[in-house]
Amino acid sequence: MHRFLAFLFLILTPIGLEGRSPNFVVIFCDDLGYGDLGCFGNPTIKTPNLDRMAAQGQKWTQFYVADPVCTPSRAALLTGRYPIRNGMTSAKRVVLFPDSAGGLPASENTIAEILKQKHYATAAIGKWHLGHLPQYLPMKQGFDSYYGIPYSNDMDKVQGSPNYRQNAVDPNYYPDINDYNVPLLENDKVIERPADQNTITERCTERAVEYIKDNRDQPFFLYLAHSLPHIPLFVSEPFRGRSLRGLYGDVLEEIDWGVGRILETIRNEGIEKDTIVVFTTDNGPWLAFKTHGGSAGPLRAGKGTTFEGGQRVPTIFWGPGRVKPGVVTGMGSTLDLLPTFAALAGAKLPARRKLDGYDLSRVLSGEAESPRRTFYYWARAELHAVRSGPWKLHVKQREPINYGREAPMDGPELYHLETDISEAYDVADTHPDIVKRLMKMLDAHKADTEDSLPDQLAARIK
Amino acid sequence: MHRFLAFLFLILTPIGLEGRSPNFVVIFCDDLGYGDLGCFGNPTIKTPNLDRMAAQGQKWTQFYVADPVCTPSRAALLTGRYPIRNGMTSAKRVVLFPDSAGGLPASENTIAEILKQKHYATAAIGKWHLGHLPQYLPMKQGFDSYYGIPYSNDMDKVQGSPNYRQNAVDPNYYPDINDYNVPLLENDKVIERPADQNTITERCTERAVEYIKDNRDQPFFLYLAHSLPHIPLFVSEPFRGRSLRGLYGDVLEEIDWGVGRILETIRNEGIEKDTIVVFTTDNGPWLAFKTHGGSAGPLRAGKGTTFEGGQRVPTIFWGPGRVKPGVVTGMGSTLDLLPTFAALAGAKLPARRKLDGYDLSRVLSGEAESPRRTFYYWARAELHAVRSGPWKLHVKQREPINYGREAPMDGPELYHLETDISEAYDVADTHPDIVKRLMKMLDAHKADTEDSLPDQLAARIK
Repeated sequence: MHRFLAFLFLILTPIGLEGRSPNFVVIFCDDLGYGDLGCFGNPTIKTPNLDRMAAQGQKWTQFYVADPVCTPSRAALLTGRYPIRNGMTSAKRVVLFPDSAGGLPASENTIAEILKQKHYATAAIGKWHLGHLPQYLPMKQGFDSYYGIPYSNDMDKVQGSPNYRQNAVDPNYYPDINDYNVPLLENDKVIERPADQNTITERCTERAVEYIKDNRDQPFFLYLAHSLPHIPLFVSEPFRGRSLRGLYGDVLEEIDWGVGRILETIRNEGIEKDTIVVFTTDNGPWLAFKTHGGSAGPLRAGKGTTFEGGQRVPTIFWGPGRVKPGVVTGMGSTLDLLPTFAALAGAKLPARRKLDGYDLSRVLSGEAESPRRTFYYWARAELHAVRSGPWKLHVKQREPINYGREAPMDGPELYHLETDISEAYDVADTHPDIVKRLMKMLDAHKADTEDSLPDQLAARIK
Repeated sequence: MHRFLAFLFLILTPIGLEGRSPNFVVIFCDDLGYGDLGCFGNPTIKTPNLDRMAAQGQKWTQFYVADPVCTPSRAALLTGRYPIRNGMTSAKRVVLFPDSAGGLPASENTIAEILKQKHYATAAIGKWHLGHLPQYLPMKQGFDSYYGIPYSNDMDKVQGSPNYRQNAVDPNYYPDINDYNVPLLENDKVIERPADQNTITERCTERAVEYIKDNRDQPFFLYLAHSLPHIPLFVSEPFRGRSLRGLYGDVLEEIDWGVGRILETIRNEGIEKDTIVVFTTDNGPWLAFKTHGGSAGPLRAGKGTTFEGGQRVPTIFWGPGRVKPGVVTGMGSTLDLLPTFAALAGAKLPARRKLDGYDLSRVLSGEAESPRRTFYYWARAELHAVRSGPWKLHVKQREPINYGREAPMDGPELYHLETDISEAYDVADTHPDIVKRLMKMLDAHKADTEDSLPDQLAARIK
């Protein structure tokens, strides 16, 4: 009888609702589109693990990255600051390249550094892209260890190798890892070059699984940044040709498998009530690559643009006992992860420093609506648009496909994002007061960023 | 102890897996877009009941209606035949109108008539649109009873009433029921005119709930065809202004509430293991009405066109014990409901009659993949396109917005629908063999429809 009562006690106690600080796992993809997961409406890519994660957790439908390209978006996630503030966006160079001399300044405080106050174990696995020189690598930014590729998987391209863009609609095309001289790093040492990108998703996943097992008895922060589905697309043997959606779908289905592995490990280790997992991506789909790129679903345009398809990303929070299941239509952003994790861990935010994130912890627990009512859209170090409640005002735009080019505009464009989900109907003419109010917000925000650090992306190695 | 064993027996017996014939409930919407449900990727319309129905049942992502407009689509669902076969599509009039003299010929066999062999109780609730003259009403087509409006909710428009199209982006616009002289019928009698469309979704739902309760002890077929979210949009008081997505979202959220009511009733009556519920719609969203119409999500175009947005519809099958949960990416169609229901009920199919449906019962039970590998796209009595596996060949098209007009084409267009989900990349030039094969299929199918009944839609009341 005593044993029975003990059993009842065990199953009824809400383990982890108080007590130890939660573990955080961020699974961050690269160029994944808003419409590429089953639970976000994709008809032919099968993502049963992510669908289940969404059903058991919170599916956020209006969640933003702070910039529509890789380097700035990552800097923003880790620091909780718009990339303009720390110089991680540039009018001159869109992201960091293998010949770049810069990186995320040491003076910036990352999530890993914030959580170190509370003695978290920290690991970065996967793509970094915040500086590949030794002084900019993850271990200089609060991470105990690093394993992954330091920049995009299409960089260091070998001269004369095939033009991927021409092959983008050929379902039989598969790239050669030897066309890309991308290094794989363990901490700050190159351990493989070119990295065997065919197995990169699998290997990063297995590293993450091992890390979770090894750290189950202490709070940890695991930043798993997959280098895919960025072009060129690589996938391990068991997933090749498996999806209806071609190579892009194969890659997604392998990432989905990896998510399943990670959640299963968290459950098997018995730490599911103490762990919060976030799944999202760095920016929208790379539409120029046609069927080799992803889909923004109903959203307009993709990567590199400040339309919704460029910056609104499919996001799921999961954490049995810590995250109340449901669909969240309130706004959120990767900018919010730092203050949210700090609040949940009881860590202090950096003093005397402008932060752009909101604490979402009470949204995760189901106690409150999202405190975020505003979002600013930056690209190439220029302020393009603002969202306030349902309204979005564009003052600058980039071409949806060739996103390097500024697009001509007749004047500011106003969209009601909640009713006009595809930014199809400009209503600036009939809403002059809202245009005026949002214009003022843009001016005020721009003024607030005038004390930003200088451009960190433009400098090249001599 | 005996009582305990009896209890165990009760909860472990797979009730309904064999034994009595299942009940069928078809919940059919009007002009609902592929992208309008949460589980199909809508960011701002909340459909928790449909999301749960999908999670507990089968979400079909490649499911088709046989025609992109109302009357032909409904004729096809009820008869399992392309509307060209029974004359329910016309080059002259797009659908039936209040001055139409025709309707579904008595010689046609509907699902209700097929199930009558097996003594099913049958009811039609909601929009009919297969002929409003007495000889064409539901009770002449195998239904025991009828309650609803006989044609579209925008017909019988009162002269001089406001132009809905002009008001389509005004979030404050709400139509007046008195602008539409639409009748509400009980069996074959008009009981209200104009129908109070504000409460039509609620009233049809409650009728359906009562019907299920009253018929819980015998097999039944309930065809609940909501007249919304067809334009003009009406919604009952508790749902007005509730959704982020404006009036369109309000209407959807009321329909979702109704789905919840129906599934809850089925569970409360203890017949959930004996009942299969299908949720779908008659065609894609009416895009001309901008934010007052729905969204096709990632699919191209909408209602009235033979692009995917016109004919691929968000479809869910639910039936604990009879439907194996999962996402089904195989093809299906409303044409398949008749043979599927006939198989599950053990009813005979009509003899000497061309049917276009496939029996999906083994897909529902999880025992087989979908037998459907082919689909033909008809509009206005013309064959526009064919799908064979992932390939779709268009030979005719209608303008995406003003769907009355034929669109100019440079030649046949070929799309790979599983990798190119938005029909964006015509690959006819590089796949001449596939074009040739699909051309032959079109010719053969056209030849197979030469014995069709004459046009039933063109004739007007003298």
